[in-house]
Amino acid sequence: MKLEVLKLARAAKEAAAKLALIETKRKNAVLKDMAAQILRHSDAIISANQKDLNAAKAKGFSKALLDRLRLDEKRIKAMADSLREIAALKDPVGAIISTTKRPNGLLIKKVRVPIGVIFIIYESRPNVTSDCVGLCLKSGNAVILRGGSESINSNIAIYSALNKSLSKFGLPSAAVTLVKKTDRKIMQGLLGQKDHIDLVMPRGGESLIKFVSERSRIPVIKHYKGVCHTYVDEKADLKMAEDICFNAKVQRPGVCNAMETLLVHKAVAKKFLLSMIRKFKIAGVEIRGCKKTRAIVPSIKAATEQDWYAEYLDLILSVKVVGNLNEAVEHIRKYGSQHSDAIVTSDRKRGLEFLNRVDAACVYLNTSTRFTDGGQFGMGAEMGISTEKLHARGPVGLEELTTYKYEIFGNGQVRK
Amino acid sequence: MKLEVLKLARAAKEAAAKLALIETKRKNAVLKDMAAQILRHSDAIISANQKDLNAAKAKGFSKALLDRLRLDEKRIKAMADSLREIAALKDPVGAIISTTKRPNGLLIKKVRVPIGVIFIIYESRPNVTSDCVGLCLKSGNAVILRGGSESINSNIAIYSALNKSLSKFGLPSAAVTLVKKTDRKIMQGLLGQKDHIDLVMPRGGESLIKFVSERSRIPVIKHYKGVCHTYVDEKADLKMAEDICFNAKVQRPGVCNAMETLLVHKAVAKKFLLSMIRKFKIAGVEIRGCKKTRAIVPSIKAATEQDWYAEYLDLILSVKVVGNLNEAVEHIRKYGSQHSDAIVTSDRKRGLEFLNRVDAACVYLNTSTRFTDGGQFGMGAEMGISTEKLHARGPVGLEELTTYKYEIFGNGQVRK
Repeated sequence: MKLEVLKLARAAKEAAAKLALIETKRKNAVLKDMAAQILRHSDAIISANQKDLNAAKAKGFSKALLDRLRLDEKRIKAMADSLREIAALKDPVGAIISTTKRPNGLLIKKVRVPIGVIFIIYESRPNVTSDCVGLCLKSGNAVILRGGSESINSNIAIYSALNKSLSKFGLPSAAVTLVKKTDRKIMQGLLGQKDHIDLVMPRGGESLIKFVSERSRIPVIKHYKGVCHTYVDEKADLKMAEDICFNAKVQRPGVCNAMETLLVHKAVAKKFLLSMIRKFKIAGVEIRGCKKTRAIVPSIKAATEQDWYAEYLDLILSVKVVGNLNEAVEHIRKYGSQHSDAIVTSDRKRGLEFLNRVDAACVYLNTSTRFTDGGQFGMGAEMGISTEKLHARGPVGLEELTTYKYEIFGNGQVRK
Repeated sequence: MKLEVLKLARAAKEAAAKLALIETKRKNAVLKDMAAQILRHSDAIISANQKDLNAAKAKGFSKALLDRLRLDEKRIKAMADSLREIAALKDPVGAIISTTKRPNGLLIKKVRVPIGVIFIIYESRPNVTSDCVGLCLKSGNAVILRGGSESINSNIAIYSALNKSLSKFGLPSAAVTLVKKTDRKIMQGLLGQKDHIDLVMPRGGESLIKFVSERSRIPVIKHYKGVCHTYVDEKADLKMAEDICFNAKVQRPGVCNAMETLLVHKAVAKKFLLSMIRKFKIAGVEIRGCKKTRAIVPSIKAATEQDWYAEYLDLILSVKVVGNLNEAVEHIRKYGSQHSDAIVTSDRKRGLEFLNRVDAACVYLNTSTRFTDGGQFGMGAEMGISTEKLHARGPVGLEELTTYKYEIFGNGQVRK
């Protein structure tokens, strides 16, 4: 096993050195061909996916999970479209971040370069396979894919289609590696390959991410969870606040940037919550409130200490009345996940104070936390969302898949 | 012990939240006052340093180590000057990295913010204490300092002087914490405080850095060693090459950006090496050569496989004759440390190929690897040099001590 892992990681490293030097035009041609291959092999992909679906059904997967796993013509077309969109994005590699001319004549260029080998660990949705391959290829990185056992047949079919483009354009096949053995042994072995793998990105449930983070000897970019807050300030436009909160909770509750806790200033709590909670109840949202919230709407459940930490990923919302902006910020500091937090207020000074003080990847004034997304930010596709403080924070797009090197041009300068 | 560590880390985190919001003017005033305090307490610092020196002498420290440890009036003045220089540098906090206006009217600002709490582990030179405090304070970060036992009295004296400025300006005292117990237990405890410490930077020998990296649950920025190469190409100006190589090896051999291996194209090897090695020998440099080098200068020692991996940090140099640029690049890939590597050539195309292909933090054309340094790069002071690929690569200055957050300004936008 050890040798197998080492061989795989080494081959990826070798491929990365080649990928780093490939010109944009050729990368884009490969991406467009990959899109065509995906469409050409859609029957094979769908029938492989059917195997996964049958196995998942036999195991009693939930409807939501089966839906995540399912591929159909439409979703396969979306995968191809996404590859074409990545081809259309600007190539980050080679971009000059800064240029400095020193008094001694040295010219120092800070230049974007690929990171090297990226190891992606993910669950269920098989379209992640082609998205990640597209983003890594465009940013000049080799990628090692390790999807879940539940989607292995789909992933193999997608990988086989994409691989045809690599060989057609003479790229090393180790530019994209799919780990076909989905037990955790190979994964753990790869997490130790710090000389050959440069970055690990786990995507999935909190337990998978914990497992990866605790075992990796390689830097990990990740988010554990998104416990996102919206704070409705005393100076908020309450109609606007209602729309924003409704969107943040209801539009897609199962994702990391959905609101999990609503904080309301005591001065507007009664007026705001009576109408807001009514609207939430009609939409099927279960409310769990603090004492003061329950004094306003007695019919709701009491929130426990655990609720403030909870990422429900469901139509459930905890609600707390706070005395002032400071209390809101302190609540977020204690219970938040540094993902996405919003304030609704018409007082710009208070808004800026909140944005300044809340330590999260994305902080919002008068809008919905649901916007934390590479596409919504105008970055094109994304590999995921990071709540790390080092390297990449927030959506991880093409630029975040690069690092830099300093190129220094001299004409004989020596240090005195 | 566990509680002590937790309390210390928590207090630093609390202090960091306050430091992040302090305006530039006030930070600069504190830095200038710190410079004054250092000068005012120079007698106390020198007598504390004398204790460390006596203990070190009793333990039989080498002359070089004693010199690193020693503080005198001149060095103390340099510490104060460095704090004033940091005060004069641009504050990275609050700088807007980019602004995006989205079609739906959202304004997305990517803003520089402090990282939070930075844990620095270092050896010998006590001036690192004030440099790191200055850089962390200016970049809005709380800092936990853990120097070596050999300089503990000096570090305590410097810390006491700096601390007077914190209280004078009403900054939390936990903005700067000095770990006074220098056994490895407290250090190890702190390396597990991932909820309160954001970044670990070890500086020192390879064994210390390995110890820290293997135990840290917090992201680490570091370099293990600097095995820096200079490749003298067939198309090099040999006079220029001689000056550059001499500087890279001899000017200060004990530092990480000094050259450890010289690679020479076979077409110019004889002409270049006869003169170069003579010059090195006069300067007291011991040469260890490959077979082809020894065919040119038979009197030198043979290099072993271990020599190609070695960071001598001394007047020793390994020399290898290569067949072409590709062989030079492959040698660097196999034995290098991704720190700093140079090519000397008058053929710009070959120069660019080398810069492109060598995967290192700093790659040089026609100049000395000795320039890898924050000051030389115009970044002001530096916390160290990174060979990491994530977050900071090369010299780590003020900007590298920051991360970013996205501030998103809306007027009621919701996601569709």
